[in-house]
Amino acid sequence: MKKLINAPEDVIKDALIGIEAADPRVLVDHEERVIYRKEKVDGKVGIVSGGGSGHEPLHGGYVGKGMLDAAAAGEMFTSPTPDQVLFATQQANTGAGVLHIVKNYTGDVMNFDMAAEMAADEDIRVETVIVADDVAVEDSTFTAGRRGVGLTVLVEKIAGAAAEAGQSLDDVKAVAEKVCKNGRSMGIALTSCTVPAVGHPTFDLPDDEIEIGIGIHGEPGRERIKLEDAHHLAQRIVTPILEDFDFEGSRVIAMLNGMGATPLAELYLMYGEVKQLLDAESISVERAMVGNYITSLDMAGCSLTLLKVDDDLLRLFDAPVNTSGLRWGE
Amino acid sequence: MKKLINAPEDVIKDALIGIEAADPRVLVDHEERVIYRKEKVDGKVGIVSGGGSGHEPLHGGYVGKGMLDAAAAGEMFTSPTPDQVLFATQQANTGAGVLHIVKNYTGDVMNFDMAAEMAADEDIRVETVIVADDVAVEDSTFTAGRRGVGLTVLVEKIAGAAAEAGQSLDDVKAVAEKVCKNGRSMGIALTSCTVPAVGHPTFDLPDDEIEIGIGIHGEPGRERIKLEDAHHLAQRIVTPILEDFDFEGSRVIAMLNGMGATPLAELYLMYGEVKQLLDAESISVERAMVGNYITSLDMAGCSLTLLKVDDDLLRLFDAPVNTSGLRWGE
Repeated sequence: MKKLINAPEDVIKDALIGIEAADPRVLVDHEERVIYRKEKVDGKVGIVSGGGSGHEPLHGGYVGKGMLDAAAAGEMFTSPTPDQVLFATQQANTGAGVLHIVKNYTGDVMNFDMAAEMAADEDIRVETVIVADDVAVEDSTFTAGRRGVGLTVLVEKIAGAAAEAGQSLDDVKAVAEKVCKNGRSMGIALTSCTVPAVGHPTFDLPDDEIEIGIGIHGEPGRERIKLEDAHHLAQRIVTPILEDFDFEGSRVIAMLNGMGATPLAELYLMYGEVKQLLDAESISVERAMVGNYITSLDMAGCSLTLLKVDDDLLRLFDAPVNTSGLRWGE
Repeated sequence: MKKLINAPEDVIKDALIGIEAADPRVLVDHEERVIYRKEKVDGKVGIVSGGGSGHEPLHGGYVGKGMLDAAAAGEMFTSPTPDQVLFATQQANTGAGVLHIVKNYTGDVMNFDMAAEMAADEDIRVETVIVADDVAVEDSTFTAGRRGVGLTVLVEKIAGAAAEAGQSLDDVKAVAEKVCKNGRSMGIALTSCTVPAVGHPTFDLPDDEIEIGIGIHGEPGRERIKLEDAHHLAQRIVTPILEDFDFEGSRVIAMLNGMGATPLAELYLMYGEVKQLLDAESISVERAMVGNYITSLDMAGCSLTLLKVDDDLLRLFDAPVNTSGLRWGE
């Protein structure tokens, strides 16, 4: 294992020190391992997310104006505790209630649920949306139902914009649910990833094989196949998405996401292949994102997320955002 | 070799198709392999850069408002031809002259120089700045003198802002030279990289060794050592920079750059270590950048760039920029 780390058990602690040192927008509570926005906005709905670490910039890199108010950083690929999520919720609450954005993994759902109950005991109103956009498998290693993956970035962006615009908790929740309903994702892995505290790859993948439908923790997908060219791999991720949701003739936001160790040149190349397939279905890409937005440590590979949008969702997507991971509009 | 590509010889062509499809700010001339800004600004000094491909987002990802007007994409790790640079210069010229920003590699310097002469024949005034910020080695595989690496990103940003503000070619050149004079970089590699058309790693690096002072094409650095922890590796990149330039007590922009395959969590962790060392020298980091800004395909590792700034450089750095690789302020 070759990594830029100190002791494997200190990776998350040390990375949080670096995030706080680098990002002037956030503060970090190092005991609770919660990253939260430095400047609070009174009367704004709070947006909270979190999950296992190892998916950076998700979630801590999305804390800032127009997106998250607080993010709870769990152990590597491990749900944050209810106490962590409660602390994040307290930081995000300024009286208008808090929305929890939860990726659909059993531990995350359970712990966010407990935190919401604990917050209710403190008279903080919490609503929850569950992101479950991965079309690869119906149930998986860590989930009942579909896994929550790339769409989470767009839920956080769009719900964050709605909250920043002063919308009520009910309205912010409604738009977040609309995103969840209209988005789908699918990914492929060329290599495994290595959790620092484990020290060896999460799974074995022969030199000439790839995993179709991989999860963001290295969970198995649909099948293993021999490596194919980008043209055919693009079909492998586009087709299952289009079979699952009728995007034909729609306007979409398309996110071609790298899993952590894939160079940007390859991601652009893959996007070009994906775009041709979308064009053929008269799917109009209104906004394209190409880069590392939700990663799996040092895994090589990519995922595609499509979100069907209308003018309202597009306006919220385009609204100013100022985080280390996404920034535009101001 | 596991990559998201079609035929290895088509990687650059295919990636340029993807860049043009994804980025609404740019157009691509696919014959010349030049990425240029869609909207031209009459009377603005043109900013042109370019170099071998494989360092994305550098340079094509920095074409847009407030940064580059055109970038010439050479073959992988290979200088663009004089014809390519001339075409980029023609695209960038709107009558106020053009600044060439050239990384100090023998082929790049020669071909940009020839292009400048060809442009002069067309009555386009061209000035040139050479970036040579890498403190690792004095001469190297592809250079007489120091290599141009991470500082290039900051030269492009700051010169781009000066041009956007309506400064003259002489003034834009002067501020670019000021950046070149006041910036230094140093990098380390944990792994080699694999050029697609070659199909195997550029160099061999045993499982427990790393290369100190690596170049962005896998050229040898200062020495190979056994893998160390991040705390000691931070010293390995900070110390040579501080020995080469007196940053003590200065205000700086610090860029902790990933080489392509290193996860963001590790980059943040390394930044935390670097920040402690800078604090100890009373170096005040005014702006921090942590991420993949100038890469070496799928190499794992990082580099640090420090630029001593005054109010003028900081104001130009903070000026609005709208490219796929760097975006803020509007």
